[in-house]
Amino acid sequence: MDERITLAHGAGGRKTSELIEKLFKKHLGNPDMTADDAAVLALKSSRIAVSTDGFIVSPSFFPGGNIGKLSVCGTVNDLACMGAEPLYLTVAAVIEEGFPVADLEKIVESMGKTADEAGVHIVCGDTKVAGKGQVDGIFITTTGIGLMPEGEYPAGNKAAPGDAVIVTGDVGRHGAAILLARDEFGIEADITSDCAPLAGLVKAAVSAGGDDIHVIRDATRGGVGTVLHEIAAQSGVGITIERTKIPVDPAVRTVTEMLGLESLYLACEGRMVIFCGAPAAEAVLTAIRATKYGEGAAVIGKVTGSRVGKVVVKTKIGGETLLPAPSGELLPRIC
Amino acid sequence: MDERITLAHGAGGRKTSELIEKLFKKHLGNPDMTADDAAVLALKSSRIAVSTDGFIVSPSFFPGGNIGKLSVCGTVNDLACMGAEPLYLTVAAVIEEGFPVADLEKIVESMGKTADEAGVHIVCGDTKVAGKGQVDGIFITTTGIGLMPEGEYPAGNKAAPGDAVIVTGDVGRHGAAILLARDEFGIEADITSDCAPLAGLVKAAVSAGGDDIHVIRDATRGGVGTVLHEIAAQSGVGITIERTKIPVDPAVRTVTEMLGLESLYLACEGRMVIFCGAPAAEAVLTAIRATKYGEGAAVIGKVTGSRVGKVVVKTKIGGETLLPAPSGELLPRIC
Repeated sequence: MDERITLAHGAGGRKTSELIEKLFKKHLGNPDMTADDAAVLALKSSRIAVSTDGFIVSPSFFPGGNIGKLSVCGTVNDLACMGAEPLYLTVAAVIEEGFPVADLEKIVESMGKTADEAGVHIVCGDTKVAGKGQVDGIFITTTGIGLMPEGEYPAGNKAAPGDAVIVTGDVGRHGAAILLARDEFGIEADITSDCAPLAGLVKAAVSAGGDDIHVIRDATRGGVGTVLHEIAAQSGVGITIERTKIPVDPAVRTVTEMLGLESLYLACEGRMVIFCGAPAAEAVLTAIRATKYGEGAAVIGKVTGSRVGKVVVKTKIGGETLLPAPSGELLPRIC
Repeated sequence: MDERITLAHGAGGRKTSELIEKLFKKHLGNPDMTADDAAVLALKSSRIAVSTDGFIVSPSFFPGGNIGKLSVCGTVNDLACMGAEPLYLTVAAVIEEGFPVADLEKIVESMGKTADEAGVHIVCGDTKVAGKGQVDGIFITTTGIGLMPEGEYPAGNKAAPGDAVIVTGDVGRHGAAILLARDEFGIEADITSDCAPLAGLVKAAVSAGGDDIHVIRDATRGGVGTVLHEIAAQSGVGITIERTKIPVDPAVRTVTEMLGLESLYLACEGRMVIFCGAPAAEAVLTAIRATKYGEGAAVIGKVTGSRVGKVVVKTKIGGETLLPAPSGELLPRIC
């Protein structure tokens, strides 16, 4: 293998085949991966969930992960949100000419490990190379297919007054980690991204909560705050949360205080927001906490029938403020 | 709507929603499109084909199409190659800050029209915006899902000695069109890309040929020549083609002669190479020629049991030469 990616690696000829054989297949190979133009898959059920996401995170490597791990987690988590069992992924990469092959291998290796952990097979892919300066490093798009169980499934318009609002761990770590990795603020802190595949966590939550699980959504580029606003609007409800119940890592808290940021609007990549009927909330919380990525889960608030479309924050000293509507992410290229 | 794409359009907030509502949904909306993290689809069968492709063509607009039309055709055609009925597409776009919204609208409008023609629904999508200079214009990744009929399906390892080799129209037009659109050679010629969705053509071929259709592959970035080499290797056969039978548009021929290019290695985006048992070849050819994009179809050669792995070209004057193995595409960012 060459040391750096060249235009020939994206040209569909011998060099492309070499890249696929020696790097992609080495880390991602499995019996469902196709050698043809499309993968043929025999599903156990004919109801599926499909989701796609493009990843352009900068830098490509950050504490707690890299763009490869992120691109698997992001799509697996989008499927899990629907109550689907993630099964298959496709991967399309656009790589800049001159990109170090060793870095590409680290990224692809992470994809393989994360796919294994999430129980998904990568079934087909595509590699394009753009000239130097035509793409910044590497962009990866993944598309996921999951099996849907029979019956109802969680959706953004199903939150109901009385529902408990659960976050599955501390908020804002991915956003804070990327912020610091860019090294623009001269702040050093020990913050790793929360980036993780959450299919197992969701399965545990759904097993414990059944039909009481109304909404599951992963808090990614807009953070937990954006999810709360989305669900308030989609379900036509109000949401009240308590500031003191929101789990925030102390290092993240320090950074947000120094920079004047709202941690609820910092991106997560391994956190779900779950809206769950009150009777099941305790059991769901216990089930989530017993999973690998859920030990920091907490109930942070509840759904109300009043103040529709608003997110109210009860402050430490007992007052109430409105969480301002999301104005967009704090950082471009967070995921 | 703003006139230009800003980072806020990719930030997941209000501007992103506006872009999705006023532009993407306007042109791509359909009952299967999701408002959640994943689309839930009920299929008529549980055997599916899945394919993904990233499109980075430069320039984004070219005679005969644009990156939007191309991104639908490319993936629809990859599914059709497997004998699948293309049904659903996902779309992930990465757009450069400052990209004109009017151009984006033209691209998305083309996607909508081409999807309609191909009979596919776009079920979910993702939009990211990268800073000025971090991506060159717009990159689009599409992933397609198609239904597989019962039984055997065409594959790259099924070509057999005696098979007729059919191309479904004149070769090299996409490659030549992009070459001229870049305006680097000072050549003017009236060449439009062959970019087209071929699911209907393939359906007609399969109806006429049945199990005699052994291989179907779309000749994209490496052209027909690369497909011939791939199939010779995958099926362990030789292939002999006749130079005089290869359909080439006169303007394309002139350009290839001026620049010393092999038209078999110029990209197509609306051409299939079909390997078909000899008894069915005439009926398949007739069926293809009756379709919208197949009127220029021709039998260009046949599969042999000898000279395994080689592609032999019979010349105009009766001699034989070997088609050199593909060295990679002539142009980067052809698709």
